[in-house]
Amino acid sequence: MPRYRLTIEYDGTPFVGWQRQDNGLSVQGVLEAAGETLSGQPSPVVAAGRTDSGVHALAMAAHIDLDRDMPDDSVRDALNFHLRPHPVSVLEAARAEDGFHARFSCIRRYYRYRFVERRAPLSLDRGRVWRRPFTLDVEAMNAAAQLLKGRHDFTTFRSAHCQADSPVKTLEDIAVARVGGEVHLTCHARSFLHNQVRSFAGTLERVGAGKWSVNDVGKALAAADRTACGPVAPACGLYFVGADY
Amino acid sequence: MPRYRLTIEYDGTPFVGWQRQDNGLSVQGVLEAAGETLSGQPSPVVAAGRTDSGVHALAMAAHIDLDRDMPDDSVRDALNFHLRPHPVSVLEAARAEDGFHARFSCIRRYYRYRFVERRAPLSLDRGRVWRRPFTLDVEAMNAAAQLLKGRHDFTTFRSAHCQADSPVKTLEDIAVARVGGEVHLTCHARSFLHNQVRSFAGTLERVGAGKWSVNDVGKALAAADRTACGPVAPACGLYFVGADY
Repeated sequence: MPRYRLTIEYDGTPFVGWQRQDNGLSVQGVLEAAGETLSGQPSPVVAAGRTDSGVHALAMAAHIDLDRDMPDDSVRDALNFHLRPHPVSVLEAARAEDGFHARFSCIRRYYRYRFVERRAPLSLDRGRVWRRPFTLDVEAMNAAAQLLKGRHDFTTFRSAHCQADSPVKTLEDIAVARVGGEVHLTCHARSFLHNQVRSFAGTLERVGAGKWSVNDVGKALAAADRTACGPVAPACGLYFVGADY
Repeated sequence: MPRYRLTIEYDGTPFVGWQRQDNGLSVQGVLEAAGETLSGQPSPVVAAGRTDSGVHALAMAAHIDLDRDMPDDSVRDALNFHLRPHPVSVLEAARAEDGFHARFSCIRRYYRYRFVERRAPLSLDRGRVWRRPFTLDVEAMNAAAQLLKGRHDFTTFRSAHCQADSPVKTLEDIAVARVGGEVHLTCHARSFLHNQVRSFAGTLERVGAGKWSVNDVGKALAAADRTACGPVAPACGLYFVGADY
């Protein structure tokens, strides 16, 4: 069965998340359905990251196994045709090299969390960004973020439902900065724990609001205790933005 | 009755347009309803520009007459409260100076038209931008746009339903340029004819696609004939972005 690498954009709002579940529509589910309509056979799809309900992707990396050989551009266009009207778009499709696996071959995942500072509710970016009705102290947020960089036990920033074997991960880079009228938290690592980026975002937001000090974040990390975490930030601000292989 | 200046953001998708109509929800209608709920009296709202169905605003200028005096921020917050769940947000409210009229006092209107060049359908920016599945010749589009600048009879670029007394207008500035991965047409004038910017956008898109020459746009303008216009571009790419007083 030929395997194709896919780069996928999606609006996570209407989905139960990436992963196929019994309780609603998933991104994986609508892609597999499109693949099956296209090839006439079950067409498993695997992604680099399994995003939660409401989390978006600008460029999710994935693969699909199809029962027939097709030109790359035809795979992209045919999947997009069969994906309608779901807000999932295949940006690129390319025949994968032997042994390629979107999840196991991935060596780095990139995320972005978007905050916007304004009093008025959102009309055009509703469900796309986390609105805070005050100005964030971005310098303090970034200083606190630097304490998270490196190899740590991230138990504090890990959902109780996380299935990873170990809470020890290496956060390769993280930064908080103003970008075009918004505040963006960006980070990358080989892999992440469940809810790790949203736990970072919610905790760093407390710093930005002046409710936590930079040092409080260091203490929360050192506690290695889930109850030491700040609130988990809403899903709508989070984007999977890329993967390296 | 105290008058307040408003700066309003809205997603034009679910509306019949700015103007109150019998056949559906309008931006003006939901604002007037919010004002009436707030003040207990009919609260007329007037805008600088009357956008069509599907056209958005980042910063529409408007005024509202309220039957009671309130602090500026309370007007903003209370209107936003009563506007829910409609995608209309009051970004700013401020007591207007005597004689201020959002439409008649306005001396300049600014519009932006967004194109995105990509093959795949849109998931995150659906209804927000006009997707063209090919690369646009932006240099040619901008050269053609310059022919439209200045004082002209714009009959070619005017809807048959336009109610303006004269087709002669002065286009103060227009430009087409790449901005952050998109192509933006921006223009401003004291006032515009009905469908003028979408007629510009649709005609310049033909130039960007290589179907029309720069000179064809000059000929279309000189014809002063509606049938000489290119296709009218879809509403979803158009934004009212500002007004001067």
